[in-house]
Amino acid sequence: MSLLVVGSMALDTIETPFGKAEYTLGGSATFLSTSASYFINDIKLVGVVGYDFPQKEIDFLQSRGIDTAGVEILKDVKTFHWHGKYHYDMNTRDSITTELNALGVFDPKIPDDYKACEYICLGNIDPNIQQKVIKQISNPQIVMCDTMNFWIEGMRDEVVKTLGLVDVLVINDSEARLLTGEYNLITAYRKMREMGPKVIVIKKGEHGAYLFTDDAIFSAPAYPLEQVFDPTGAGDTFAGGMLGWLCKSKSLTEDNLKLSVIYGSTMASLCVEEFSLEGIRNLSQDKIRDRFNAFKRLTHFESLEI
Amino acid sequence: MSLLVVGSMALDTIETPFGKAEYTLGGSATFLSTSASYFINDIKLVGVVGYDFPQKEIDFLQSRGIDTAGVEILKDVKTFHWHGKYHYDMNTRDSITTELNALGVFDPKIPDDYKACEYICLGNIDPNIQQKVIKQISNPQIVMCDTMNFWIEGMRDEVVKTLGLVDVLVINDSEARLLTGEYNLITAYRKMREMGPKVIVIKKGEHGAYLFTDDAIFSAPAYPLEQVFDPTGAGDTFAGGMLGWLCKSKSLTEDNLKLSVIYGSTMASLCVEEFSLEGIRNLSQDKIRDRFNAFKRLTHFESLEI
Repeated sequence: MSLLVVGSMALDTIETPFGKAEYTLGGSATFLSTSASYFINDIKLVGVVGYDFPQKEIDFLQSRGIDTAGVEILKDVKTFHWHGKYHYDMNTRDSITTELNALGVFDPKIPDDYKACEYICLGNIDPNIQQKVIKQISNPQIVMCDTMNFWIEGMRDEVVKTLGLVDVLVINDSEARLLTGEYNLITAYRKMREMGPKVIVIKKGEHGAYLFTDDAIFSAPAYPLEQVFDPTGAGDTFAGGMLGWLCKSKSLTEDNLKLSVIYGSTMASLCVEEFSLEGIRNLSQDKIRDRFNAFKRLTHFESLEI
Repeated sequence: MSLLVVGSMALDTIETPFGKAEYTLGGSATFLSTSASYFINDIKLVGVVGYDFPQKEIDFLQSRGIDTAGVEILKDVKTFHWHGKYHYDMNTRDSITTELNALGVFDPKIPDDYKACEYICLGNIDPNIQQKVIKQISNPQIVMCDTMNFWIEGMRDEVVKTLGLVDVLVINDSEARLLTGEYNLITAYRKMREMGPKVIVIKKGEHGAYLFTDDAIFSAPAYPLEQVFDPTGAGDTFAGGMLGWLCKSKSLTEDNLKLSVIYGSTMASLCVEEFSLEGIRNLSQDKIRDRFNAFKRLTHFESLEI
């Protein structure tokens, strides 16, 4: 199975209570594809960067088995630059600057040999672009997308139109509430289900994630960490691990969807332990397996009955 | 095994977005003992009420197999009355009135035939009273206690002294942060562990609960409900179910502690589905078992490995 990933590529400046990293690798497509690369080796990346994007980061992505032929390098603008500052609790952040640069003219051209991809993963970008990408793919089996409050507030109708084309939606709790006008997340799920996606994951940050299907609800905790170094990219890393597992295992049963959420949570927990993308840049299968097993110990119980 | 429960008994007036209940059965000891009564039948209750406390509620507690000989009925004051109003999100509430009445002169006298109880459950009351109760018990095996921000803010030293006498602490996330000055809950756990309790449960409301022991962390979700009718008493119902199971099963292994947290969560989820104590007033073992099994489906995953 091959996975097409389309989204932003960025150079981020990140401040947390633990330090600062400048012009470090960021962007939804970057985290998504790197995370998925630990599960499958046929990933095709579409994104846009500027002249200042380091060649060594392109080399890194290729070293993870990611096809970067679809990454456009614009010669006359800089790469998308986001500068964010996290507060003490790590759950809230301020955007200090958002310089769209190359991302502002993103008009993804899907290379011909990408169009047969069976799995599609659309990072948080303009919903019009998400729709254009989907329409270029000949026969997608699974389309997953993310979105954010910026698009919901400014282009709600287009977001809803995208959802009509999507199988799996991954969304934050606050975004789900904004999109549906419902505080209760089960009610919010029902409203989003009517918009199209048959599988919906609502991410709750440090409180984990809910998976909703037509038949079941699954609750996965976030891995409890004493030191969260940098939450940037955790949501995309989650989605990349989830879809990477689904793509590898080729099954959408309830059991396998649950497992994919745990693999997503596993990758996200490894991501936030270091700055930027460093936490998932060079992981061993052993480290992933250990964290996965820790999730099992964290959540499973023996069922003696009263 | 016999369980001694000491705490407040109240008549509550509760307003939620779904309605209002006036002078309805409340208080920590009431929820704790009722919840535990679904697991064990040797519960001894100590509390104080006023002349207006309905006899039918004493009869109800007795019908649950709870020994009410330790409930003092004061002839010249009214029962503790709390009037609370929940906001739309059900996570925040205002206290409209708090009339201590009988609770204001609570000086628990432990009847002689109560003093051999092996398990002790101390609801959220003055930490001085908690200490006095513990000292009256001849040979307690497990002492569990709850506390709240009111005591932490006003009598922190006494709260810490109580914790030195306690085996199992059940506390809210905001209270744990207040008590320790730590935002991260793992760090907060470590500081509270140093105060005494070897088992600590941090409740996170709609986000579930963490169980900490010296060897493990366990994460239990709250059961996702589309309609939370009234969260009053959910924390005490949790603690009552947890200690009820521990008292019944007589084991403090990691596996059994995890199970106790799930039984606590099961009872709490049934509690919040109705006003006041109604959700746990008359439960069948089948209903408890069904909710328990739903927790299993909600959290367990099969562990295929990458």
